[in-house]
Amino acid sequence: MATATCFLCPSPGSFKGSEMPIARFRCCSSSGSSNSVSLNTRTEPRPVTTFVKAFAPATVANLGPGFDFLGCAVDGIGDIVSVRVDPQVHPGEIRISDITGQAPDKLSKNPLWNCAGIAAIEVMKMLSIRSVGLSLSLQKGLPLGSGLGSSAASAAAAAVAVNEMFGKRLSVEDLVVASLKSEEKVSGYHADNVAPSIMGGFVLIQSYEPLQLIELKFPAEKELYFVLVSPEFEAPTKKMRAALPGEIGMAHHVWNCSQAGALVASVLKGDVVGLGKALSSDKIVEPRRAPLIPGMEAVKKAALQAGAFGCTISGAGPTAVAIIDNEPTGHAIAQHMIDAFLHHGNLKASGKVLQLDRLGARRILD
Amino acid sequence: MATATCFLCPSPGSFKGSEMPIARFRCCSSSGSSNSVSLNTRTEPRPVTTFVKAFAPATVANLGPGFDFLGCAVDGIGDIVSVRVDPQVHPGEIRISDITGQAPDKLSKNPLWNCAGIAAIEVMKMLSIRSVGLSLSLQKGLPLGSGLGSSAASAAAAAVAVNEMFGKRLSVEDLVVASLKSEEKVSGYHADNVAPSIMGGFVLIQSYEPLQLIELKFPAEKELYFVLVSPEFEAPTKKMRAALPGEIGMAHHVWNCSQAGALVASVLKGDVVGLGKALSSDKIVEPRRAPLIPGMEAVKKAALQAGAFGCTISGAGPTAVAIIDNEPTGHAIAQHMIDAFLHHGNLKASGKVLQLDRLGARRILD
Repeated sequence: MATATCFLCPSPGSFKGSEMPIARFRCCSSSGSSNSVSLNTRTEPRPVTTFVKAFAPATVANLGPGFDFLGCAVDGIGDIVSVRVDPQVHPGEIRISDITGQAPDKLSKNPLWNCAGIAAIEVMKMLSIRSVGLSLSLQKGLPLGSGLGSSAASAAAAAVAVNEMFGKRLSVEDLVVASLKSEEKVSGYHADNVAPSIMGGFVLIQSYEPLQLIELKFPAEKELYFVLVSPEFEAPTKKMRAALPGEIGMAHHVWNCSQAGALVASVLKGDVVGLGKALSSDKIVEPRRAPLIPGMEAVKKAALQAGAFGCTISGAGPTAVAIIDNEPTGHAIAQHMIDAFLHHGNLKASGKVLQLDRLGARRILD
Repeated sequence: MATATCFLCPSPGSFKGSEMPIARFRCCSSSGSSNSVSLNTRTEPRPVTTFVKAFAPATVANLGPGFDFLGCAVDGIGDIVSVRVDPQVHPGEIRISDITGQAPDKLSKNPLWNCAGIAAIEVMKMLSIRSVGLSLSLQKGLPLGSGLGSSAASAAAAAVAVNEMFGKRLSVEDLVVASLKSEEKVSGYHADNVAPSIMGGFVLIQSYEPLQLIELKFPAEKELYFVLVSPEFEAPTKKMRAALPGEIGMAHHVWNCSQAGALVASVLKGDVVGLGKALSSDKIVEPRRAPLIPGMEAVKKAALQAGAFGCTISGAGPTAVAIIDNEPTGHAIAQHMIDAFLHHGNLKASGKVLQLDRLGARRILD
């Protein structure tokens, strides 16, 4: 067996013995993360099955005044990762066998440069897997750079799949930490997509050192629909982040803080009207980012005029997200938003009306 | 009857016919407030009794990251206002007959310059009272400038007393708007003391135009104690406000927003540990204000070392507030905080351990 190498301190030239890039997950840093990971295993677990398929839902991060610390999962769209015990893969290594679905050519099959690969490696490292090799297959259900947590869903599905493979030894927090390693590489060290994609529902990230996540339970008996309208437009996360102000005036800070508080209260109370209102109220981030997405301001107006309780940019965009309490109105709102993107932004767009995903990333049947 | 004059556009020289300053509440501005006041009366109501006594509790505003939009009421200390139908007072006017309790000499008996007087006048104006004169008596239970919402308690008690006198025609929001007129004069137009003093419990102020208040219900079955330690030190609200930064970096903004969200979630979930943690987490206001209160940083450390779940400045100080889930530990924490004020700030201090006031301002028996 080759000497242990930290593949997250990238040295990709060191790959040998396989046509596909393969990552070794025995890291030079045995703790694996600067976060306090509560590992519940010290010996190498055996696989409890030879094949696992996992789904992780799309997510809406930021939610207006919840910028960078709040997100939620939406049901019905997401990424699927399958992992298989593969004798062809060197024990203690991982290989990405295929990528299908949305824009597969844009994604690397090098597991060190693929969201699913990085998260899978992290989980294997946390579990100290040395005796089993895995091959990983990724079905991209989410478009890249859409503001729906595409990279996070890949990471979450991979983390959950590998954890399921070895008997679910890791906690939810561990899986979030593993997926964060992936997010760190593609869009910055923030958990407002990976945490809800893994946990489902609404999640508030209170801190990173240590990782503190607060599950915000939306009441089971309440109806909540997300109208997601994605224009054919590329809004790179980095560009959208550069648009943020460096400094914020006290009045706007207090305003956004109070709206964030109102948003949290609305979620926990199941107050969809209040949720929409708070969602729409951001005075700091949305006003800077919306002008970078052609037609976005008109789309928001159109959504509200069509009866949406609130509307904002999903994640870093370009998807617009509106909130409503029933599906038929949701579809009508979606149409108005699509029209607005076309007429005011000259952009084609497609819409979906989805419910809250309350489960998060999970194993699914083949 | 004299011509209608707006006494909230002060012209105190116009008083006649009484030794005591008297305020006429028929305002030149018939709407009475720029806020949308939902009056439920258009004709002048009659008094339903000749005497009302009302109590309004002390409040802890800000609560760390809830700066300027969050507050809660604490039970057992507060101000008492009595109002009496007084034929000696010109119909449609009000007179402050006496002020007792804490520092009565520091308070004006001119109702236009007294917190209770201003709020009482506003309520009478909202109710269009023209045929009855009232005398008002104020028992100050709260010290001035302590950070416990002293002015707000006077205003809240007066507003509730007058509203009770005339059959409780006004809504809670109306009473908050009336009391805000008073706060505006003494410490700025903010409702984070008056709203919880009137409503009880925790209240989030989401907006002022229109006034939107969110009641954050702390679960009835959970125990929550406030350790309030007040040093003998004057920390004027204006000076404390001047210490605030004009601009805030994005990282601190996101941090405080997330803590504010966590604070709201902790209140609604009844998570006292989480509440304390969020309360302690302010990176924007407390770090600027604490150094202005001798010993405050040491007091916070002492509280946490003694087992408090969290500690911060109450309102604009100088009172320090710590959180715990049982009374005996609360008393031990109070002693440590008092000692810290003495040893590190050279200030004598007194402590109280109080529960959440869940009722807010209310009529009490004579």
